[in-house]
Amino acid sequence: MAETAYKLVLLRHGQSDWNEKNLFTGWVDVPLTEKGRAEAARGGELLAQEGLLPDVLHTSLLKRAITTANLALETADRQWIPVKRNWRLNERHYGALQGKNKAEIRDEFGEDQFMVWRRSYDTAPPQLDDSSEFSQHGDPRYAELGENAPRTECLKDVVERLLPYWNDQVVPDLQAGKTVLIAAHGNSLRALVKHLEGISDDDIAGLNIPTGIPLYYELGADLKPLGAGRYLDPEAAEAGAAAVANQGAQH
Amino acid sequence: MAETAYKLVLLRHGQSDWNEKNLFTGWVDVPLTEKGRAEAARGGELLAQEGLLPDVLHTSLLKRAITTANLALETADRQWIPVKRNWRLNERHYGALQGKNKAEIRDEFGEDQFMVWRRSYDTAPPQLDDSSEFSQHGDPRYAELGENAPRTECLKDVVERLLPYWNDQVVPDLQAGKTVLIAAHGNSLRALVKHLEGISDDDIAGLNIPTGIPLYYELGADLKPLGAGRYLDPEAAEAGAAAVANQGAQH
Repeated sequence: MAETAYKLVLLRHGQSDWNEKNLFTGWVDVPLTEKGRAEAARGGELLAQEGLLPDVLHTSLLKRAITTANLALETADRQWIPVKRNWRLNERHYGALQGKNKAEIRDEFGEDQFMVWRRSYDTAPPQLDDSSEFSQHGDPRYAELGENAPRTECLKDVVERLLPYWNDQVVPDLQAGKTVLIAAHGNSLRALVKHLEGISDDDIAGLNIPTGIPLYYELGADLKPLGAGRYLDPEAAEAGAAAVANQGAQH
Repeated sequence: MAETAYKLVLLRHGQSDWNEKNLFTGWVDVPLTEKGRAEAARGGELLAQEGLLPDVLHTSLLKRAITTANLALETADRQWIPVKRNWRLNERHYGALQGKNKAEIRDEFGEDQFMVWRRSYDTAPPQLDDSSEFSQHGDPRYAELGENAPRTECLKDVVERLLPYWNDQVVPDLQAGKTVLIAAHGNSLRALVKHLEGISDDDIAGLNIPTGIPLYYELGADLKPLGAGRYLDPEAAEAGAAAVANQGAQH
């Protein structure tokens, strides 16, 4: 492995209240379950065991990612590293589906429409009304976005709003030789992996990222992966990815 | 109260392992006790009850302050705010006393020497040897300090290393109209309160700051307090300050 490889660790948050209840979450700011907190702590143990100690942390503005990072860094004894948070790392905004049960949406709209909303690259769900209890309209953390705050997003939208943050904030940390930890979400991390690995718009539908297991990339000077991303617990990752793929089938 | 008052909240970390064991801690990075974690969560409740929601957080590089802030912001539902961490907010470096029992030091060196080391403004304890198990020599978080990393400090040293951070990093946040939370330590907060209130070198010896109770200041445009600092739980603060003053008497 080249001495100069950049070190990047991606961490999807542990199980949240709404993962457990099988609801579309998006930008709704739900906490981790006890299981999710344990997953996060285990993620930190894996980092420590590998000697893969982050020098800087980037998180979304959502507590399930922030708490996951806090707990993982507590276990890895790296709480003191600098932290940057940004809405561009948030989960995909799920529009009018936010707060809805995945299985019920599947039953109501059918398997095809359900999978389009979940996994098509460029079709967003209907917009969420600002008056909805699940809207983030008026939330002070998004004040800088003003009227540009999303009301729904497809994965393509996530790629487009994520990449400026990647280029302007994350890449300089990597180029400074820092081991970078990004604590984020299923779809913001899928968007990033799509970009890093050059996955096609069609093939990205098949990529599922499990909760709470650090995914490690070594990147070359061109910021492309030197090899496949490696989960620090491959067996748990395989089971976890299968569980994500199967969401909506639950009742 | 003037409309333009700056809002500043100081929070000393909750009880740590070594507070409980009555050891001099300084820069040794010890975790909170369960009681300390509960104090931190309660601190966040007090902030939420007062509607005193921080817009930005500043912490030391020590986990007892970082965890306190994390837990308080979790309770106050403000985990998403920006965070800045800096060694200049660290506890006073206690030199050769780090890791020593307060009561034993008092018995060995006598009450007068004990109180000089604890509370004189400009007399530091003997330097801690770099080879000590309680030294932070070589700790990557202080790499930027190089050979200038402290081996002991008196309160005057803390004031001098704290003020550049206050002026350069905290004051601009206040002037931007942000409610600022500083999560730090008994002596770094005493140093800051001394500066804010213009307390004399002699009188600062009598000031004790209790753990886990937010201390709220409104500052004028000249960055001087518009009134006395106010603990959000005054009764608990009085009992807590008395307990701090009494340390060393314990066996």
